[in-house]
Amino acid sequence: MNITEILDSYKAGELDLSEAEKLIKHNDYDEMGFAKLDTQREKRSGFPEVIFCAGKADDYLVSIYRRMVANDGCALGTRANPEQAALIMESIPEATYDPVSRILKVEPAGGYKRTGTGGIVAVCSAGTADIAVAEEAAQTAEYFGADVLRFYDIGVSGIHRLLSKVEEIRTADAVIAVAGMEGALPTVLGGLVRNPVIAVPTSVGYGANFHGLSALITMINSCANGIAVVNIDNGYGAGYIATQIGRLAAVGR
Amino acid sequence: MNITEILDSYKAGELDLSEAEKLIKHNDYDEMGFAKLDTQREKRSGFPEVIFCAGKADDYLVSIYRRMVANDGCALGTRANPEQAALIMESIPEATYDPVSRILKVEPAGGYKRTGTGGIVAVCSAGTADIAVAEEAAQTAEYFGADVLRFYDIGVSGIHRLLSKVEEIRTADAVIAVAGMEGALPTVLGGLVRNPVIAVPTSVGYGANFHGLSALITMINSCANGIAVVNIDNGYGAGYIATQIGRLAAVGR
Amino acid sequence: MNITEILDSYKAGELDLSEAEKLIKHNDYDEMGFAKLDTQREKRSGFPEVIFCAGKADDYLVSIYRRMVANDGCALGTRANPEQAALIMESIPEATYDPVSRILKVEPAGGYKRTGTGGIVAVCSAGTADIAVAEEAAQTAEYFGADVLRFYDIGVSGIHRLLSKVEEIRTADAVIAVAGMEGALPTVLGGLVRNPVIAVPTSVGYGANFHGLSALITMINSCANGIAVVNIDNGYGAGYIATQIGRLAAVGR
Amino acid sequence: MNITEILDSYKAGELDLSEAEKLIKHNDYDEMGFAKLDTQREKRSGFPEVIFCAGKADDYLVSIYRRMVANDGCALGTRANPEQAALIMESIPEATYDPVSRILKVEPAGGYKRTGTGGIVAVCSAGTADIAVAEEAAQTAEYFGADVLRFYDIGVSGIHRLLSKVEEIRTADAVIAVAGMEGALPTVLGGLVRNPVIAVPTSVGYGANFHGLSALITMINSCANGIAVVNIDNGYGAGYIATQIGRLAAVGR
Amino acid sequence: MNITEILDSYKAGELDLSEAEKLIKHNDYDEMGFAKLDTQREKRSGFPEVIFCAGKADDYLVSIYRRMVANDGCALGTRANPEQAALIMESIPEATYDPVSRILKVEPAGGYKRTGTGGIVAVCSAGTADIAVAEEAAQTAEYFGADVLRFYDIGVSGIHRLLSKVEEIRTADAVIAVAGMEGALPTVLGGLVRNPVIAVPTSVGYGANFHGLSALITMINSCANGIAVVNIDNGYGAGYIATQIGRLAAVGR
Amino acid sequence: MNITEILDSYKAGELDLSEAEKLIKHNDYDEMGFAKLDTQREKRSGFPEVIFCAGKADDYLVSIYRRMVANDGCALGTRANPEQAALIMESIPEATYDPVSRILKVEPAGGYKRTGTGGIVAVCSAGTADIAVAEEAAQTAEYFGADVLRFYDIGVSGIHRLLSKVEEIRTADAVIAVAGMEGALPTVLGGLVRNPVIAVPTSVGYGANFHGLSALITMINSCANGIAVVNIDNGYGAGYIATQIGRLAAVGR
Amino acid sequence: MNITEILDSYKAGELDLSEAEKLIKHNDYDEMGFAKLDTQREKRSGFPEVIFCAGKADDYLVSIYRRMVANDGCALGTRANPEQAALIMESIPEATYDPVSRILKVEPAGGYKRTGTGGIVAVCSAGTADIAVAEEAAQTAEYFGADVLRFYDIGVSGIHRLLSKVEEIRTADAVIAVAGMEGALPTVLGGLVRNPVIAVPTSVGYGANFHGLSALITMINSCANGIAVVNIDNGYGAGYIATQIGRLAAVGR
Amino acid sequence: MNITEILDSYKAGELDLSEAEKLIKHNDYDEMGFAKLDTQREKRSGFPEVIFCAGKADDYLVSIYRRMVANDGCALGTRANPEQAALIMESIPEATYDPVSRILKVEPAGGYKRTGTGGIVAVCSAGTADIAVAEEAAQTAEYFGADVLRFYDIGVSGIHRLLSKVEEIRTADAVIAVAGMEGALPTVLGGLVRNPVIAVPTSVGYGANFHGLSALITMINSCANGIAVVNIDNGYGAGYIATQIGRLAAVGR
Repeated sequence: MNITEILDSYKAGELDLSEAEKLIKHNDYDEMGFAKLDTQREKRSGFPEVIFCAGKADDYLVSIYRRMVANDGCALGTRANPEQAALIMESIPEATYDPVSRILKVEPAGGYKRTGTGGIVAVCSAGTADIAVAEEAAQTAEYFGADVLRFYDIGVSGIHRLLSKVEEIRTADAVIAVAGMEGALPTVLGGLVRNPVIAVPTSVGYGANFHGLSALITMINSCANGIAVVNIDNGYGAGYIATQIGRLAAVGR
Repeated sequence: MNITEILDSYKAGELDLSEAEKLIKHNDYDEMGFAKLDTQREKRSGFPEVIFCAGKADDYLVSIYRRMVANDGCALGTRANPEQAALIMESIPEATYDPVSRILKVEPAGGYKRTGTGGIVAVCSAGTADIAVAEEAAQTAEYFGADVLRFYDIGVSGIHRLLSKVEEIRTADAVIAVAGMEGALPTVLGGLVRNPVIAVPTSVGYGANFHGLSALITMINSCANGIAVVNIDNGYGAGYIATQIGRLAAVGR
Repeated sequence: MNITEILDSYKAGELDLSEAEKLIKHNDYDEMGFAKLDTQREKRSGFPEVIFCAGKADDYLVSIYRRMVANDGCALGTRANPEQAALIMESIPEATYDPVSRILKVEPAGGYKRTGTGGIVAVCSAGTADIAVAEEAAQTAEYFGADVLRFYDIGVSGIHRLLSKVEEIRTADAVIAVAGMEGALPTVLGGLVRNPVIAVPTSVGYGANFHGLSALITMINSCANGIAVVNIDNGYGAGYIATQIGRLAAVGR
Repeated sequence: MNITEILDSYKAGELDLSEAEKLIKHNDYDEMGFAKLDTQREKRSGFPEVIFCAGKADDYLVSIYRRMVANDGCALGTRANPEQAALIMESIPEATYDPVSRILKVEPAGGYKRTGTGGIVAVCSAGTADIAVAEEAAQTAEYFGADVLRFYDIGVSGIHRLLSKVEEIRTADAVIAVAGMEGALPTVLGGLVRNPVIAVPTSVGYGANFHGLSALITMINSCANGIAVVNIDNGYGAGYIATQIGRLAAVGR
Repeated sequence: MNITEILDSYKAGELDLSEAEKLIKHNDYDEMGFAKLDTQREKRSGFPEVIFCAGKADDYLVSIYRRMVANDGCALGTRANPEQAALIMESIPEATYDPVSRILKVEPAGGYKRTGTGGIVAVCSAGTADIAVAEEAAQTAEYFGADVLRFYDIGVSGIHRLLSKVEEIRTADAVIAVAGMEGALPTVLGGLVRNPVIAVPTSVGYGANFHGLSALITMINSCANGIAVVNIDNGYGAGYIATQIGRLAAVGR
Repeated sequence: MNITEILDSYKAGELDLSEAEKLIKHNDYDEMGFAKLDTQREKRSGFPEVIFCAGKADDYLVSIYRRMVANDGCALGTRANPEQAALIMESIPEATYDPVSRILKVEPAGGYKRTGTGGIVAVCSAGTADIAVAEEAAQTAEYFGADVLRFYDIGVSGIHRLLSKVEEIRTADAVIAVAGMEGALPTVLGGLVRNPVIAVPTSVGYGANFHGLSALITMINSCANGIAVVNIDNGYGAGYIATQIGRLAAVGR
Repeated sequence: MNITEILDSYKAGELDLSEAEKLIKHNDYDEMGFAKLDTQREKRSGFPEVIFCAGKADDYLVSIYRRMVANDGCALGTRANPEQAALIMESIPEATYDPVSRILKVEPAGGYKRTGTGGIVAVCSAGTADIAVAEEAAQTAEYFGADVLRFYDIGVSGIHRLLSKVEEIRTADAVIAVAGMEGALPTVLGGLVRNPVIAVPTSVGYGANFHGLSALITMINSCANGIAVVNIDNGYGAGYIATQIGRLAAVGR
Repeated sequence: MNITEILDSYKAGELDLSEAEKLIKHNDYDEMGFAKLDTQREKRSGFPEVIFCAGKADDYLVSIYRRMVANDGCALGTRANPEQAALIMESIPEATYDPVSRILKVEPAGGYKRTGTGGIVAVCSAGTADIAVAEEAAQTAEYFGADVLRFYDIGVSGIHRLLSKVEEIRTADAVIAVAGMEGALPTVLGGLVRNPVIAVPTSVGYGANFHGLSALITMINSCANGIAVVNIDNGYGAGYIATQIGRLAAVGR
């Protein structure tokens, strides 16, 4: 109900003053005491609220999953550890867990979104150690309806591996480039593709990589065009924005 | 000419061995001695090479502008100072300069791209001191064909200013959020819109802002979804990627 | 006894030279060998010394709690782990422990201070993971006599949750804003309330949050007025200063 | 006009639908194109919007001063350089400028606020080089109605200077402690006074002071209670929050 | 044997060419394969080589202790953990271990040096959590012959504790000031004493203390005279240099 | 097969179009799904691909070792922990593991390269705690055919130890200087030898060494000539480049 | 007058109550309004207050020099620029200025202190660019009575230069080691001398030296014993503490 | 003269005791008071001492150039500004200056070293703004006898430019890779060539490049083999070490 509708309903006497006031003040969330579930998120953004599992207390986590499944019939959680996965799967048997991406989700049969409504997303990783983050990105994008192409271990120190895949990568609406250590992959990709590159630094490396800061700084300073960066190891965030981009492209197809 | 075509032409005798070899080795740039103009950029990316004017020697700058105008009939340069602008305008009378955005460009009548082919881009700035960066973003997007909506001085310390504009901002295919100091604007916008937010930290501020690092770090750590970040003061980069996104959306309209 | 009084007593022969000298040299603490309890703290500041439990050796900790309870009948400790709590509760049965805030205290019946003498303090948290720090702030303020209002999970990425509570928050004498990740909550609150906002960065987040530095830097650079910042995760410090402020306001009521 | 009033007026026909909608959307600012003056700030916070002069273009600056003086009869600006001061004083003859604090203001006869309504604020500086920042704090507090006590050059390396002033400093409702270099002053003051200490790091120093970061970090890590910190060189911010605190205390007198 | 002596011996035929050459090339260490014990250290510096136990492999550690005790009849080791202590004490029964300072040593009856030959050293600590580092300093100084005065828990947030001890502290030839968190103790001491202050930052604290960097930076930027700084938690280094200073003073007594 | 050869073979009909295209697109790697082994690395660089074991999943690690041994008869892995070593040795009995350097390798009888084909490499370490990194460098260089001279525990705080070895060190084609803490060794060596010094900072130290950053920064800022630096603890990288240098020298012998 | 004396005088009626109270409160400074000259400094520390000229306003500077010369007949100022020197020399003709060290002083005939009362101080510099800082140290030490030995351009990249001077340097009571870039000089010196080394990092260098931070961090992490560090470019501080040390040694001669 | 020779001469009476002692103490430099020219550098390293002009006082600079030309007939200086160049060229007419590389040198006819004795060095730059640093490297290498191949503007965001030059670059004995911004060039080159890559980060860029730190950190963390790094903008250092490598290779040709 938007403001015009609230005002009309109020004038028409369908709402009394306190009801109208409350609605205008946007009480559009689900108060759980320790949390306020953002029930209007899907309406505002096209995607539902997602659960960041790391560090959540067990009882909070179970409550939130249950409430979201009760409300929507599905739920997506990231950074779940195996103990949390076991806990939720005990409580909600249809939940599934992938230990590589650490995604713990409940999906309706056929998935939450129809494949392709989120466009085509290419997920590229520099090394094998970046696969966990790449999979978080890929599976997030798939949950939100993207058709995902995976290109792993194509880091720029052996540039022929990347070059052999360029034409396939160029078919994507958005490209996710996941890299740790020196983080050069997005720069090279940015010079070869047409559509946006979402760069994801990872904490892979040692020494002066400062837990991923090296790759983050590299990516922020990229001399290539068409690159924007998310937080270190934030595969989820990359999958989200790539699907937002793909969704715009999918509308026209 | 792709590799299949080169191989066919070679077999057909239309190319000799050295010609084919040279083509395969990608000699697709314009060698100027001190520089190699990337003449295939537009073919690869849909946008031409752009000139980063800051720090370029005068004679290099003039040569590059002339070569690009000769090749393409147009040229876009960023970070030009007034002296550089005077120099180029003397050499190329149809060049124009905007001292706020520091963009120095040569455009054909009617512009380089038709308005709207780059989609709809909203450019939001937190404060008046961020306008220079915001304009670099806005004018870059316009050059590349976006239809730009401007929302300036809507920083979150007076949240009612931003809230009064949300419905207009939500109509954009991509939102650019420009902010210095604590850099909170993209986070609040990210929670209110549907499409991607490109966050641009600026060096505006003092003290512990570390020339924009504070805003950069804020934006990278944003708790909102759908946000990706470019370098400090990089209005150009934000305008570029926002137009890439808008272009995907415009295809379907 | 102030200096005038000491001098008078000395002249009157009520103190001999060495006694007077000792008093003037401020021997106003309780020497425990490994520690010097600041027994005049309450007189100077209105609040007693508080025990920072983390890292204290077991025997030191027990000695300090016992001495303080013997002197004052009460004691407040922060950052106690469950083992320390068990240890103290074994030694001082009336001690109580809250595992969320990690506060371990001994209070007289009715509390150490009468509720309201420390004014009204609003404690706001951005996310559910910030609740531990928020509760340390809230319970510290309550111990020192504040009337505490709690507003949890009102982070700015879903701004409607915060907006729905603004009128209640505005009733507080001091507002504590607890946030990790990008730390934008205090800036938005600072623009909406009338009284001081004490900002508490938390170490909640990952990647480029640098264990809370991101939120700290954000808060220090806030473009809003009326904000001052305490150390990362320092809920206690925020509760303390907020109650100092509330106490000034309570006098006039 | 709050939401209840708007709804009532609307029902009573005093407002039509579009007027009501606009009011509800908070159009409570003064749109100047390049800026949006926050005309409801005083109503929300008790203090008007203040002009941060540094880096503002000349014509913007003159427009903003004129508009604020036209609206309110007064205006406070900070970080004005002498050229900006001359410019504004030419345009608004009753403007006054203090080159030490760099405050450029227009005040009604008798001042903007009655002295004492902002409580009693003590402004302490560690060294003579910190006086510029201390005066920005002091004059801000005075503009907003505080009664200011000044204690300069009482740094802790000659602790007797500070000790000789403690009893006077303790009379303040809020204490501002301004220090550069190692920034130890607030910690010592925090242990000696009863009311809040607002710590202001300054960029005074050299070598490893990192333009004030050393003092900032010192103050954030203070082992004393009752200290909160503002940005480096942010005298204005300290004066503002100290007066907010003093205002609460003044109500009861 | 200095070069003149070697040359004389060689000319006199007491040394042959290769012996002389070897001596000149300074083979003044004890080659152990994995290590080269600096057997001339005591001759050069007046103090023997000391063993940094942390991280040393068990067999290396035992070999080194044994060799040093065999050569000199004594050995001083720092940063030994309890397991290492047990290992050495099994191998060398007269070894003793102090778990607070983590010093593991073998001393002749009566000590390695006569007390007082290393002057008078005052060891001051800000808090009880700094005692481990303070004791490393104190026991190092004692091993090297200093007469040590201990003043613990005299941090500047309760300045009266420090002031009550100033006259005693002033009797020392060198003052060691150990502090974590904001690290202000050395600055206040530096203003009150006559002889050098060796400042030791500790890693005690949390949040923005960055494992002791905050205290280190504070101390390096101290506005007081007569202060020099050693590494974070480096009690040993402070005890060493303080004793060097005390030794110079003791000569004249 | 280079491009000329591919074109010739294609024209001669020895390759069909798709074969030629595939070869030109550089499909010169071994696709393993999760990884792409760079089978042309030895041809390009003279050295084969090496396995960075740390963090690799067990099944990936076994697959990679097996594939490399199947392809080449040998494999070099670094940063292997004892569990990984046991796993590989169970699967490939001829594998050997050195717990100091953490190198896990499979070598043909007589070694992968003939000793001396990689020139003469001196490996110097400052302290005994740097030996793990020094051995990684030394054993890498040996694997690649270098003749390695070891000089351990020659740190500059006892300069005579280093000076006694200078003439031997000067015989090397490349010098590796491994040091933690203040990292001064490469600077002193750089002034004494004729050939390149590869500096390896280590994470050995404590306090303000920031896990090796101190040594890295020291080495990068060295005032001596002929020094270049690799990542913290990167013994492998130093061994590699030192052998590249030695290989150039060995050609002429 | 110490507290015992004040109490006695008071009892004897030589002081009235307010006089005694004032004395006890330590009003032992010279109030100048903008500054509080620490007139008891020499009594407390043996050295007078010193003027840090950089950044002081002209009128403040003249007032302070005049007041100090009037009180004591001499004054030492550091970091004076040529304009300040001219200003003071105009006002106080006997003032002298050294443009290398930037020391601006007024000394009685024969100097402020007799040479040798401050012991023997060796001042060593790594490069010629470090001489300005080295001279600040040397001239400060001379002013305070040290006998100074200078050793310039003995950086460790040409170690023979340093080694040729070691025996002379070893005669000093305290050694000042001034170095920029990688800052290795103090470590090598620390291993060669018997008495304390005061390390002074300088801002000399470029690139990753971070204005002297590289040398500071190197020195703090030194693996040699007997080293303590002052702030970047703080020649004055090093000269001060070295003379404190020398003074202790001189007593016994 | 080595130690054996000195000892023999001494025994033979060709040297007296003090002469022998002095020689042994390595008085192998030219004492100029403010500086100690390292006259044995060429003997030790094969290359003479080089003058770092930046920041040197005019009279020092002239003295040093004159002394070096008098001793050796040639001199190489780096980082000379045009004023210094004019000064030296006035004093030494055969001096030449290149304003791009800022190299100011005096060379004998035919050059200081014969071309090719320093091997073959490829100097690659990522962008045109990196040319100044690249030329410092190239001209240093040429001065020391290298045969230099230049490849400018081959940054990885247009990878085809680099790929078209790979076969030429592979002919070099050492490759210098100069890049600012994100600094990815050395990583890609490292994967394509056989010989060592010396990486030179430059300060080219803006925003979060931190004056070249971004490129430095990227290069240190490179995932490619055969890369070592010098300081930011240190073209000279890269030219030096590349020529050391080339010299080893040239011996065998």
